[in-house]
Amino acid sequence: MSLETADSILIDELSQQIGEGAVSTEPQVLLAHSHDFGKIVDLQQPLAVVFAERVEDVQATLRLASAAGVAVVPRGAGTGVSGGAHATARCIVLSLERMNRILEIRPDDEVAVVQPGVVNAVLNNAVAKHGLMYAPDPASYQQSTIGGNVATNAGGLRCAKYGVTTDSVLGLDVVLADGTLISTGRNTFKGVAGYDLTSLLVGSEGTLGVVVSVTVRLRYLSAKTCSIAAVFTDVIQAAAGVMAIARIRVQPAILELLDIGTMRVLDVAYGSDLAARGGAMLLVRTDGHGAEIEANIVRSALENLGAHVSEPDDEEAVRLIEMRRASRGDGQDDKYRVGEDVAVPRSAMVEYMGTLDQIAARNRVMVRIVAHAGDGNLHPTFWVDPEDGAAGVARLDAALEESIRAALEAGGTITGEHGVGTAKRDWLAWEQSAEVLEIQRKIKAIFDPQGILNPGKAIL
Amino acid sequence: MSLETADSILIDELSQQIGEGAVSTEPQVLLAHSHDFGKIVDLQQPLAVVFAERVEDVQATLRLASAAGVAVVPRGAGTGVSGGAHATARCIVLSLERMNRILEIRPDDEVAVVQPGVVNAVLNNAVAKHGLMYAPDPASYQQSTIGGNVATNAGGLRCAKYGVTTDSVLGLDVVLADGTLISTGRNTFKGVAGYDLTSLLVGSEGTLGVVVSVTVRLRYLSAKTCSIAAVFTDVIQAAAGVMAIARIRVQPAILELLDIGTMRVLDVAYGSDLAARGGAMLLVRTDGHGAEIEANIVRSALENLGAHVSEPDDEEAVRLIEMRRASRGDGQDDKYRVGEDVAVPRSAMVEYMGTLDQIAARNRVMVRIVAHAGDGNLHPTFWVDPEDGAAGVARLDAALEESIRAALEAGGTITGEHGVGTAKRDWLAWEQSAEVLEIQRKIKAIFDPQGILNPGKAIL
Repeated sequence: MSLETADSILIDELSQQIGEGAVSTEPQVLLAHSHDFGKIVDLQQPLAVVFAERVEDVQATLRLASAAGVAVVPRGAGTGVSGGAHATARCIVLSLERMNRILEIRPDDEVAVVQPGVVNAVLNNAVAKHGLMYAPDPASYQQSTIGGNVATNAGGLRCAKYGVTTDSVLGLDVVLADGTLISTGRNTFKGVAGYDLTSLLVGSEGTLGVVVSVTVRLRYLSAKTCSIAAVFTDVIQAAAGVMAIARIRVQPAILELLDIGTMRVLDVAYGSDLAARGGAMLLVRTDGHGAEIEANIVRSALENLGAHVSEPDDEEAVRLIEMRRASRGDGQDDKYRVGEDVAVPRSAMVEYMGTLDQIAARNRVMVRIVAHAGDGNLHPTFWVDPEDGAAGVARLDAALEESIRAALEAGGTITGEHGVGTAKRDWLAWEQSAEVLEIQRKIKAIFDPQGILNPGKAIL
Repeated sequence: MSLETADSILIDELSQQIGEGAVSTEPQVLLAHSHDFGKIVDLQQPLAVVFAERVEDVQATLRLASAAGVAVVPRGAGTGVSGGAHATARCIVLSLERMNRILEIRPDDEVAVVQPGVVNAVLNNAVAKHGLMYAPDPASYQQSTIGGNVATNAGGLRCAKYGVTTDSVLGLDVVLADGTLISTGRNTFKGVAGYDLTSLLVGSEGTLGVVVSVTVRLRYLSAKTCSIAAVFTDVIQAAAGVMAIARIRVQPAILELLDIGTMRVLDVAYGSDLAARGGAMLLVRTDGHGAEIEANIVRSALENLGAHVSEPDDEEAVRLIEMRRASRGDGQDDKYRVGEDVAVPRSAMVEYMGTLDQIAARNRVMVRIVAHAGDGNLHPTFWVDPEDGAAGVARLDAALEESIRAALEAGGTITGEHGVGTAKRDWLAWEQSAEVLEIQRKIKAIFDPQGILNPGKAIL
């Protein structure tokens, strides 16, 4: 039997077991589900896209794919930026978008149980009436799904104070490669029975199993928040502002650093005049019952550094923070432009930003930086003029590599919150030893002995 | 060669490689290191106790033990209460107590790196001068080590607000069963490179590797705290108080519930007269810049329920919370008395406490309860009169089992923070499916193929 015959048998079986409307081989559907927002190096078309509506659909897909030895690429909204949801050769893309029901909200337990396709913002809206929030808020929160957030262990702005996805996930229902459904974790805030398989699965980018239900811990939506914006002469001063806030031991809910390049992008996008006012900005939000007290402490600390600081809850500061929080970036990365994601120890941030400038200058590429500064998590965007062609791409790639090396040399990591996906896989061995890489491969083999789950992603 | 000859060769080799002063076979040393604070069912004497001082000592011990096929039981201060550090037959106890150096404190990064034998309170004292704290504070914090806290994923009082051990651990250096040293995790607050092996190792009770270095995230030591004590007529009212605090969306740093039995124990221990004043208590501490505002909100919410509430920072309230925080319990559990540790969804707490009363009455055993109420984590202590002999022990065991079943039926877990150790191993299959138990065994086999690391603990 030829591969093509085998593939069409598989697609027929999927249609039979899951329902014809749930399996698509339409070219435009295949294309739309062939990649996420990560840089595309080698575009592959999936054999079919399965739109699961029930746990049984996921199980059937994995059982059939296992039997056929066909790869399965699980997918939420496809807003990832590391290629974790890029289709691989001869694969089934398994979309969880239709599994979008909030199964339970238990306000007194401060817990919700959701299907993987629930959009982050939808969950947040649903729990807000109870005075609760789901804390992790990646910039894609209006599009991205909880399942996708779990797959990448997504961060965001609020995690400076409230932690990343793994800190809000209590338990998971997961379908393994052979179709087995398991439950990990628990319903309670605390629990130490057995190994922490839940944390192992969070951030595993669909390489260990397909998440079909997520039990999340909710946090208190602050009755009071205070937003301030501070303009500095340059990023070095702004980074000094970050350290000053830390040294007075105030923990903002949000603490973002924007360099001049980012300010210019905002000016173009929103008609503001930020770049005319200074060379770098900090956007700070405090919350909780001490929000005002904290905002005032932050304000005077930053003014002492010579920053121009807005009044607490100045309209523009509020607007800028919300703009920043909701900004999904400005489109898909390509070979001429790449948004990076490293984290360094916070005290190394200033020096690292200086290094980035040097790297950009040396390689004649452009760079602008925005940072979740409270966490030392930087997102430099590097780009070249497309007219520079292959030579520009080569310079860009060289600059990217150098920026990753420099982050590691500063004691940092190759990825703060975006994940390894396909984009960072080659760099993983720079950060992790051969022994650690080997342990990860062995763990993968426990969950997915045939290696059908999102092959070529997340680990080496 | 007889087993005895093999054992003495092993001990000779250990002495040669690690140093004679670091290997003890003194009977009183063996006895002192043969168990932790958990109930002892089957006391075993180790072959020897190795007091490691360097990473190389740990590696040498594991290499020699692997070659000899002898079990290794790693051990911190031995303050665990689930038997996780109980010696097993023909084992080497590997004490990490002498590896007690704080390797680094980086105040600007809010990170410390410590050896596993550093006592929790010692780390907290060392970082306090920088306005920082290491948040997890098990009641044993004045004796227990960070390594032991990592092994059990220890909780404590402050984790209501600041999370448990795993939430404060960024990275680990770990020696595997064959002596290989690996590093997991990172130096930064955020990072998603590869699978989260760090969280997998935290709480694994020394069954996957021996932790030789821990990189921890520090939190801000609050400039301001407010303590209040509230007396209620009974635990049902006190539990209503817990829900009331949650519903006004105030997150206390500490929220402890004490029943009348616990109040009587405190009265005997400290000469107070708590039991004369009511039938249950809540001890609440708020912190942060909003501490006073929050304490006042909590106070009026509890008064509305009819509680007698002390003024914020009433001397006795402060003293009671510190007393509770530092209370290591009153001695070693034995067959006539067992301190339990379950967690339930918070809204199920009242009903669960009622169930505990019924279980105690039905089985004619005594029970008293203290709870980390903010987390739904309950510590009932069950006991019988030793004069009741075997019949009393049988009734106690029956009550324990029923209390665990009831916690699971309430949607809870068999262990909130103490760990499985040996004490809860038989109950693990009540909580976790055969598939999950099997995955855990396979993970164990990756790290420790011969099964020499703390065999018979943590997993089934």
